[in-house]
Formats: sequence, structure tokens, C-alpha cells
Amino acid sequence: MSDDICFASAHELGSRYRRGDLSPVEVAQAILERIDAANPRLNAFITVTADLALEQARAAERRLREAGEHHPLLGVPYTLKDLYATAGVRTTAGSRILADWVPTFDSTVHARLQAAGAVLLGKTNTSEYAAGPTNANVWYGQAYNPWRLDRVPGGSSGGAGAAVASGLGPIGCGSDTGGSIRIPAALCGVVGLKATYGRISAYGVVPLCWSQDHAGPLTRSVADAALVLQTVAGHDPRDPNSATAPVDDYLAALEGDVRGLRVGVPRSHFFEQLDPVVESFVEAAIEMLRGMGVAVREIAIPWVEDAVAAANVISYVEAADCHRDSFAARPADLGPEVQDRVLVGTVLRGVDYVRAQRVRASLAERSAELFGQVDALVTPTTAITAPPVGAKRVRRGGRDVLVRPALTRLTRLHNVVGLPALTLPCGFDDDGLPVGLQIAARPFDESTVLRLARAYERATDWHTRRPRLE
Amino acid sequence: MSDDICFASAHELGSRYRRGDLSPVEVAQAILERIDAANPRLNAFITVTADLALEQARAAERRLREAGEHHPLLGVPYTLKDLYATAGVRTTAGSRILADWVPTFDSTVHARLQAAGAVLLGKTNTSEYAAGPTNANVWYGQAYNPWRLDRVPGGSSGGAGAAVASGLGPIGCGSDTGGSIRIPAALCGVVGLKATYGRISAYGVVPLCWSQDHAGPLTRSVADAALVLQTVAGHDPRDPNSATAPVDDYLAALEGDVRGLRVGVPRSHFFEQLDPVVESFVEAAIEMLRGMGVAVREIAIPWVEDAVAAANVISYVEAADCHRDSFAARPADLGPEVQDRVLVGTVLRGVDYVRAQRVRASLAERSAELFGQVDALVTPTTAITAPPVGAKRVRRGGRDVLVRPALTRLTRLHNVVGLPALTLPCGFDDDGLPVGLQIAARPFDESTVLRLARAYERATDWHTRRPRLE
Repeated sequence: MSDDICFASAHELGSRYRRGDLSPVEVAQAILERIDAANPRLNAFITVTADLALEQARAAERRLREAGEHHPLLGVPYTLKDLYATAGVRTTAGSRILADWVPTFDSTVHARLQAAGAVLLGKTNTSEYAAGPTNANVWYGQAYNPWRLDRVPGGSSGGAGAAVASGLGPIGCGSDTGGSIRIPAALCGVVGLKATYGRISAYGVVPLCWSQDHAGPLTRSVADAALVLQTVAGHDPRDPNSATAPVDDYLAALEGDVRGLRVGVPRSHFFEQLDPVVESFVEAAIEMLRGMGVAVREIAIPWVEDAVAAANVISYVEAADCHRDSFAARPADLGPEVQDRVLVGTVLRGVDYVRAQRVRASLAERSAELFGQVDALVTPTTAITAPPVGAKRVRRGGRDVLVRPALTRLTRLHNVVGLPALTLPCGFDDDGLPVGLQIAARPFDESTVLRLARAYERATDWHTRRPRLE
Repeated sequence: MSDDICFASAHELGSRYRRGDLSPVEVAQAILERIDAANPRLNAFITVTADLALEQARAAERRLREAGEHHPLLGVPYTLKDLYATAGVRTTAGSRILADWVPTFDSTVHARLQAAGAVLLGKTNTSEYAAGPTNANVWYGQAYNPWRLDRVPGGSSGGAGAAVASGLGPIGCGSDTGGSIRIPAALCGVVGLKATYGRISAYGVVPLCWSQDHAGPLTRSVADAALVLQTVAGHDPRDPNSATAPVDDYLAALEGDVRGLRVGVPRSHFFEQLDPVVESFVEAAIEMLRGMGVAVREIAIPWVEDAVAAANVISYVEAADCHRDSFAARPADLGPEVQDRVLVGTVLRGVDYVRAQRVRASLAERSAELFGQVDALVTPTTAITAPPVGAKRVRRGGRDVLVRPALTRLTRLHNVVGLPALTLPCGFDDDGLPVGLQIAARPFDESTVLRLARAYERATDWHTRRPRLE
């Protein structure tokens, strides 16, 4: 029973609340108990807001019973990566520098979820200042992968990935500068959505690289990702990069037909040096899409290496700008990953930065040409499944593979060009570790991403597996 | 008679054409003759397009007589700074690198003036790649100030300033990254208008620093500046920084009342270390505005030094990016000013650039606060009148003054914040050299700038003086 509650989707919780056979307080209690039991092994949370959650659950219950409100997220629990500012709740950004920071304002995503009546369970573990793909946080400890506790959950939103996969809240809000939502979602076997740049406000999310930072959800189903997107998307004057484009009906898009959609498969870069198990599951997924009537075509994105190079320069320079003052004042209070960004980012030249931004601007045009040929792109999300904690290299398919690029090099294009991209599970390796399938589309076409993902999800049962936490 | 024609305003030419007592061909001929006579002394032109001008004048005459068209600029001559791309006409940007470049496309300002039926007389002298405030061009030679030929005309649009002041075309299109329209307009005693960033398309204008480059007119009257602005303003999809804000009726704005307008006089920075003659004429102009019912108030802009510092960093880095490839391939083909920008700009760090852009973004807010208190700003345009050719220092008011900052430090704020700003003559020193009055307003409020300038111009006769070219 508790397992059923904890693994129920946000959609399911909402409809059971409205039918009256379940209450937000019961659900919050069940998940908080599960957090108590599981978090010592997972280290998915930096802060659990148990009292606040129960208070919000009781308030949601009153709104349901007395006011008859029916936002689908009313009473639904969620977690926030500890990068999201929460008024009155400490927000560490995974750093020692902000260890005692209690914001006096709410990030926009949090404010919108609160307005919908959702219930905050706590703040999840993150790589320090969101830097790094393995969640090796020197101040708050490593978060662990629920499918195998000796493996990383991916990063930087690793706590969110571990929590959502383990039934510790159906929604985990993460952030993604170069893959930080999609990498942990893939490694933890859940859905992760990075929308178009500017589609979801990043106001109040501690920046890593403001021109590539994206806020977005991790969930256990495509429909829940659509529901969160529907709730939090839309213009925010407090975020200077927030888009004014109209917000689609993402829930309606889930049921759309995929026949005739043109899906591009970019073989170079995205299908090179893959773990064979990743390759075979992704190929099988592509075949399945073809079987649904999708027009699959091989395409070339010859400029992807330029995009990745530009993304790197921009990331390092902007991260160095974000953290150089802390580095100057309190160098010992920054971990090695952030120190490295400041050191490298500080020596990069202004001309390299502006050239990278100019390359980036030119890529928007090339991306538009690409999406003249296809409606979506399908690739793996990461080149390998979750590596062991602490590993810098792993052996996969008879080759030595460097962990960091294997985790990050397939997700960066979407940040630098600003494309919406989603990952969902498409298989499990022999160690029981999930494989991620990444679907992307043209800017502001989250609907096509969700439609394809839902079609694939509907035809498979990967998303029904649960980790045993052993 | 020829003098009358050559010093007629664009407005006057247009109405005489329509009355039928003057023809575009007569006017083009008269001005071309005057260019032949005066240009050897002024070096205001890099290229004179005499045949093309006569052909366009004949076409304009046909459109007037046969088609009965009546755009106010139909048949009116203009010049373009040699930074504006002109299909089929070489465009040097004042550089040796582009000495033989014949573009295959038109800059947007040129295209819009051509569509209106205006007549191109030629391409005017400019500092190499628009870098530097004195027009000391090592490849095409110094342009000279028509009021005293031993003085600089200001830069970088020095050829435009000299030409407009000397009756060599009523309209000279210039460009302004840190004052390059307003400085030569002030030193040559004409009107120079830099509109809001993005108001006039910069497409096809060879860049110096794209995030601060502005295209705009130099004219002999405020009304002519308004007429050109009306013709060339408006969104251009080919310029990624082009604004979509609606275009005002600038000609109607000219006749508006100035009573009750709140004009700020920022004493610090803008009134420090001025040539006493500049100070006294600008003070007299402010008193005159007060007499017209303008509410003059002293204000502080404590962040102006931050703005200038940010402008400098951004200028050097973007200029270095524009010219680094030329510098690497053909260093001997770049003059000292451009070499300096590449050398300095190349060592500036990416973190310095992004910090400067962040400072700049924060200034937009502070500027908005400022324009909560006042509707316009009035200051001098330059701290000194035109210095001798080649001088690095001049003696003014008993003090040694460095030429470069004296020419540039009062105009940069408007570029980095993107404010519309106009200069017009407000006096002449004992050497017969003009003094410029600078009027600025909030972004996209060119109407207030023009209204104030026209009110001042109407009450004075500085604009009626003509240089003798001795």
C-alpha cells in the first residue's frame, strides 16, 4: 500500500484526491516515512522539510475538501534541487559558501508549484553549484544510485534523480546547464525534461552559467513531465531570459499521433564510442518508433563539435564569473570542481568568449535548417550507464572509457542551441542499470518531444520497473 | 545661387522639387561641383559616386515629374560613411584590408534611402574600422575640419561631419559606437543623432563593437535629422539587435511644446574639466531652455564611471574579435589604432567581458530610475572644441588637456545604455570653432530629444553659420 502510494504518479494522486479515496496528508506521511528509511542510504536530500510538508498537505486537503479546488497538482508532493531559492528554507546550492543561506524570496518554479497547491518535501542533493555530472559533493556527500548503491546517480541533479526513482516524491525539480537534468534522469531510469531556453523561468535558481541554465522536472512518467511543464512554463519578467512565446497545451500533445513525424538520427558524434548495451537499446527504440509510423532518417550535424566547444568556453567563463569572488575570499570553501571552473574560466580570453557566443548565434540558423529536414532528433542520453562512485574510467565494450565525457557529451548541444530535450528509460543493462533515450525538437516545440516520448512509453514497460534499494 | 542650393536643407530641397522650381539633377550637379572644389582640402570623401549620383538624380526627377511621387527625400542627396555596404560601390571601412571590397548587398539604411529616392553622392572618410575620435586615417589620409583646416573634424564619422558642414550634401550617414556621430557633428557644428540601440538597423555597417554600434544621420538641421530617422527607423530582421518597438511620428514631435519637460543636468563627470568656452555656451543653452519653461534640475549619475569602464571593456574585446583574424594574417595592413584594440582586447579576460556586460545590464535599471526623475539629459557633447591635427594634448583654460578623453568621455554613456542622444551647435569659440550641446532621453523617446533640440535651434542662429573653407 505504502509502495503504491509512493510510486503513484502525480496524475494518479490528483485523480485519487479528487475521487476522495486518498488524502494529501496520507501521501505526504507515507513519502516522508520512506524518505526517513531510504535517505540514509541514498543521501538524496540535503534538507527534508517534513513539518512544512505536512502543513502544506493539510492546507491542500482543506482546499480540496472545502474550497473544491482541482488543480491537478493540488496536494501532490515535489522536491526541489537545493539550487532553487525557497523563502524561509535554507538553500545551500550544494556549497559551503551558502551553507547557512535562508532566502527571503521564492524561485519562480517553486512559487508556481506552491500556487498550484503542490507540497514541498525537501531540497535535494546537487553537485556543488551544479558543477559536475556525478554528484560527488564534498560538503554534503555523494548521492547514490537507487538501482545499485555503489553507482553514481549522475549529476548535477543527482539527488532529484535518486529521489524520483526511489518513490521519494513523484516530481523532482532539477536544473540543466549541459545535461544536469537528463544525465541523472537517464542514470536513475526516470523521465527528465529540459525545455527550450527561456521556456521555464530560472529566476531564483542559483546560476552556474546563466546563458545555458535551464530549470525543469524529473518525473516517473512523460505525462507528469507535461503536467509540471504546463504548470510552471510561461513568461516571467523577473528572468531577463524568459521567453514570451505562447505556452502550448502539453497535456493534449501527449495523445497526438506520431505517424509521419520525421525523426532524425544523427550517427556521427551521438552514436560514436557508445557502451554496446546503450547502443542496442537505443537502436531498438528507434526501430520501435519506426514501427509506429515515424519516418526515421539518418542525418548529419557536422557542427555539433563546434557547438560543444562553444558550450565549454561559455560555461567556464560564466561559471568563473559567478564564483570568482568566493574563490578570492574563501578558496578553501570551494570544492575541486568549482575551483577548476574558476581557474580555467578566469584565463579564457574575452575574445574566446565572444567568439563562442557568435558561433552559438550562428548555430541557431544551422539548427533551423536542420529542423527543416526533421521534426525531432533521437539519440542516447549518455554513452554509458551509471559508473561506480569515484570512477574516472570504466571498461565498456572492451574499451577504456573516460567517465566525464561519456556522461556529458550527448546532452550539451541542446543547451547551447536551446532545444527542448527529454530523456526516458529505454532499457536496462546486465547490472540492472537503466539506459536513457533522448528526444529533442525545434525550439518551443516541447509538444513534439512529449508526443514522441509518450508514444514510446505507452508501447514499453521500462518505466514500471522499481529499484529495490539493495 | 550654388551656395544656396548646397546649403539648402533636405526639407527645403524636397519642397522646392515639389513646387517645380528646382530639379534633383541641378542639385546633384551643384553639390558634385562643390565636392570637386572642396574635397582636395577637406579629404571628406574616400569615394565620390558622381556618375551614379547623376543617374539617380535623373531617376528621381522622372519619379517626381512623371509618377508624381512625393517622398520628402526623393531626389535629396546624401553621403554614407564608408562603413556602410553599398552593392557595386567599393566599401573600404577606412581600411587597407577592405580597400578593394565591392559588396554585393546594400546596408539597410542605404537600401531604405534608395527606396525613398534619395541620391548617393559618395562614401565619406572614417577612422580605420571606425576606431578613434580624430579621423586620423593612415590609409586614406586625415579628414579636415571645414571651420579651420588645421583642426580635426572629429571621428570616427569625420568625413560625414566635414561634408555636411561644408555643403557637400545635406545628409551624411555616420555610425556611433562611443560617440562617432556626435563627436564629429559637434566639432563640425552640425546636428548628429544617435538613436536608441536597435532603433536604426546596423545591417551592412562594418562592425566595430556590435553590442554598441549605432547607425544614424548627421544633418544641418534638427528637422532633417528627424526626417532621416523617420525614413530609416523600424525593425529589420537582418539585424539581430534591431528593435521591434513602434516608430513614432518624429516630424510631428518637432513642433511639440517643451514647457514643463524635466531636464536633468548631471554636474559630476559631464561638467568636469571642460574647456571654459564649452562650459559657458552650454550653461547659456541651459538657461535658454529654462527660459522656455523647461524644468531644469541638477541630478547625479553616480554610476557613469562604471558605465564608461564597462563600455571600454566591451569595446576592446568585441573590436579585437572583429579584427583578430586580419591581425593574425596581415598585421602590417592594420593601422596603430586598430592594432591597439586587438592587442588590448585580446588580453582582456572572458570574466572581465561578462562582468562588464552584467554591469551594463544592471545600468539599464538604474537608467530607468533616472528617467523616473527627468525626461531628458543636457550636457556638453565634447569637453573641448576641435583640436589641431595630430595633437595629443591641448592647452585649454590654463590646463593641459588630453585630447582623446576630452573628445570621448561625454558620449559613451549613451552607447552602453542605449539612450537616444543628439548634438547640435550651441556656440563658437574665439577660433571660430563650434561647441556642441548634447540632449538625451529615455530609450525609444527620440521624440523628446528632437522636440527639445528643435526648440533650442528655433531660438538661436548658430546653425545658420557657414564655414569659409579657408
